Amino acid sequence: MINTLYLPELREMLADGKADGLREFCHALHPARTAEFMEGLSADETWQVILNAELNERVEIFGYFRQDKQQEILSNQNRDEVAELVAELAPDDRADILQDLDPNVLDDLLGRLPTEERRDYLRLSQYPEGTAGAVMTTEVARLSANLTTREALEEITRQTEQYETIYYLYVVDDDNHLLGLLSARQLLANMKTPETKISEIMETDVVTSRVEDDQEDVANLVARMDLLAIPVVDQEYKMLGIITHDDVIDVVRDEATEDAHRIAAVDPLDESYLNTNLATLSWKRGMWLMILFFFALVTAIALQQFEDKLETWIWLGLFIPLVISSGGNSGTQTATLVITALSRGHITLSDWFTIVKRELVMGIVLGLVLGTMGYVSTLLFEDVDTFSSSALVVPITLVLVVMAGTMTGATLPLLFEKLGLDPAMMSNPFVAGIIDIVGIVIYMNVAVWIMDSPAAG
Amino acid sequence: MINTLYLPELREMLADGKADGLREFCHALHPARTAEFMEGLSADETWQVILNAELNERVEIFGYFRQDKQQEILSNQNRDEVAELVAELAPDDRADILQDLDPNVLDDLLGRLPTEERRDYLRLSQYPEGTAGAVMTTEVARLSANLTTREALEEITRQTEQYETIYYLYVVDDDNHLLGLLSARQLLANMKTPETKISEIMETDVVTSRVEDDQEDVANLVARMDLLAIPVVDQEYKMLGIITHDDVIDVVRDEATEDAHRIAAVDPLDESYLNTNLATLSWKRGMWLMILFFFALVTAIALQQFEDKLETWIWLGLFIPLVISSGGNSGTQTATLVITALSRGHITLSDWFTIVKRELVMGIVLGLVLGTMGYVSTLLFEDVDTFSSSALVVPITLVLVVMAGTMTGATLPLLFEKLGLDPAMMSNPFVAGIIDIVGIVIYMNVAVWIMDSPAAG
Repeated sequence: MINTLYLPELREMLADGKADGLREFCHALHPARTAEFMEGLSADETWQVILNAELNERVEIFGYFRQDKQQEILSNQNRDEVAELVAELAPDDRADILQDLDPNVLDDLLGRLPTEERRDYLRLSQYPEGTAGAVMTTEVARLSANLTTREALEEITRQTEQYETIYYLYVVDDDNHLLGLLSARQLLANMKTPETKISEIMETDVVTSRVEDDQEDVANLVARMDLLAIPVVDQEYKMLGIITHDDVIDVVRDEATEDAHRIAAVDPLDESYLNTNLATLSWKRGMWLMILFFFALVTAIALQQFEDKLETWIWLGLFIPLVISSGGNSGTQTATLVITALSRGHITLSDWFTIVKRELVMGIVLGLVLGTMGYVSTLLFEDVDTFSSSALVVPITLVLVVMAGTMTGATLPLLFEKLGLDPAMMSNPFVAGIIDIVGIVIYMNVAVWIMDSPAAG
Repeated sequence: MINTLYLPELREMLADGKADGLREFCHALHPARTAEFMEGLSADETWQVILNAELNERVEIFGYFRQDKQQEILSNQNRDEVAELVAELAPDDRADILQDLDPNVLDDLLGRLPTEERRDYLRLSQYPEGTAGAVMTTEVARLSANLTTREALEEITRQTEQYETIYYLYVVDDDNHLLGLLSARQLLANMKTPETKISEIMETDVVTSRVEDDQEDVANLVARMDLLAIPVVDQEYKMLGIITHDDVIDVVRDEATEDAHRIAAVDPLDESYLNTNLATLSWKRGMWLMILFFFALVTAIALQQFEDKLETWIWLGLFIPLVISSGGNSGTQTATLVITALSRGHITLSDWFTIVKRELVMGIVLGLVLGTMGYVSTLLFEDVDTFSSSALVVPITLVLVVMAGTMTGATLPLLFEKLGLDPAMMSNPFVAGIIDIVGIVIYMNVAVWIMDSPAAG
């Protein structure tokens, strides 16, 4: 919902050129709120408003705009003013925003950046998306190991404006190798003995990530260890940057959304739903629908093998959707439980036997419940004699199909994990597609077995 | 995967009573790693190991154990030793762990806690699960507004061990009303003027949450604003506690898992998959399977209305699974995209018209793709004459069913959001269940319309 509270006032101040009022507006609130209040303004108006703010406030507010507004401002506004802002962005945010710009705009902007920021961008943009390198920031408080506690405090007091976080201070040698870590809190707690070397009080068992690590693994590590930030090192243990808690939250949310999309057989979107164009969306969805179509086609072919039975017992056809959706739903439930438990680290491959056992029991229990409901339902249809053995076809099928569903839902994601693939790829429609085929084969065979047998009523 | 690297050594040290070695083991590594290395030990052995550690290290290591091990230790080990540990836990973690204990054990343990910690637990345990109050911690650095910068630094230096975080310092009046916020960084940056009152440098536009707020909303707010922690206040703006970044990550992960489960028609689990007992799991899954069974039953009843047509054109039955799964899959895709975009805040209800328009286009595009594939597939089946109008039944049905799927998938979650219900409740199998019914009705009507018409070949 767009907040329109201040829009008329802001537009009036813009029209009247009231710089003081606009500066005050940019200064009074938390920058995220200021950004929120400007959501209803055009990119052009927005830029005119924040040009009145101090540079550091302008940078902060800009960071909270939606990505499309950020892109529009960078592409269309005065390049020198824009470059001044880009130079002050946090290195990881800068890399994110610049990467999506039109190449011509990007070249022009890079040329206007100070050398250090330009090099920083070019270095960061080399790391492939999805790796630790691509989400880290390079502005990090590094301290030399031979500083004393007092010197260290003076050093960070002097430089505090520069860094994204000072809550962890990283201790490095002259070649930038990571030696240890000191929290701002430990530093303060040791101020009673200001001449202690920080190398004596730092922690040396630092949890680190490698620059090429998968960002999802890094986020899980940070979450499990309750860290505020994690240092990123290269093969030689040289300190390249850090990943901070807010980036970890973003990664956790992005990965959860990606998993949800994969589970529903949508190839994960790179941008938000509304920002994804229809051609891309058609492809990311159509591709999977076409694959799933082939499963459904196999189901039709399987059914065709039993066409004469369907002709003899027309009522069998009525229960086809019920049989396959019961199997599909129970399989989908299991697959989702297993996929989310894997991604949360609640289960690992070594638990496979426990999982299969559990799901076998679940399959029997849920199968018996649905089978009983199926028996009662069959009787509602006139075509089936209440006490004939044919009344048992649907219930027996339901028990077997639900068991097949839970077994498929349990084993396929584990198999994918075992093969080193993303278990979320074993999407629910995929599991359901397989169950459709298996379900039809079970259904028809149970029907033939019961009704073609000499005892059939 | 359980790390067995140190298990033999640990067991040997336990058997030989080597207290020094065990203390060193508990001290040398990050507590999360220490906990990881003990995963293969029984709860009893684990407790014997960490009893050798200093109390503060023991508390930290304990915090990284799996919940079932924590529960087992608290229930079975010496109550006084256990109470000593519980008293030192962070208030929010303490509340989480104690809440799940057997009531008798809980009573006994509470009786052995210091009065302050007991009261704190009783207060925290009042807040309903899912609210801000239930995840906040009460140990927070509060400063009086009339302190100077120097006094404030001395104060937190003295008390730093007590608090979970000192990165934000909260400024309160004598009645504990929240006046403002100061980051450790701002405090250090202002040390050049040590006699400045902190009330002059604090930020007064503090982003807060109310104690009764939904934890998901609070987590989204913290994520959007990139906060490290958010203060929790009551109706009178009195400071009750804070929610820290690590708890926010946990909430984000829990809520994403809950959504994934709801989307797959599993009532969200309160505990991890393996810790949920089979009776609970049967209920949380069976309940939804039974509801979905009724949808499938309606599909069967709908089909029954067309039994004579199925008898005349047996081949129609073969394509039932294909028709309903195509509709279900495209509906599922749309519903998941809409649900995740809603929960990420990428779309709001006011975007409904854009969403419906997009999904109408998607329905037409994807429908035409699947319809074309359907046309080709129909020809593979001998029953249908290549150039007869009956060859058009399946393709035309597919276009209409896919469109119905995307429309249902888009509107149902939006409707639930509008009604103030959780859109993830409009689970994918639910959408698919509705599409099954609609799909059958469309399929049969298209068949009757085309093949019963005088022009039919």
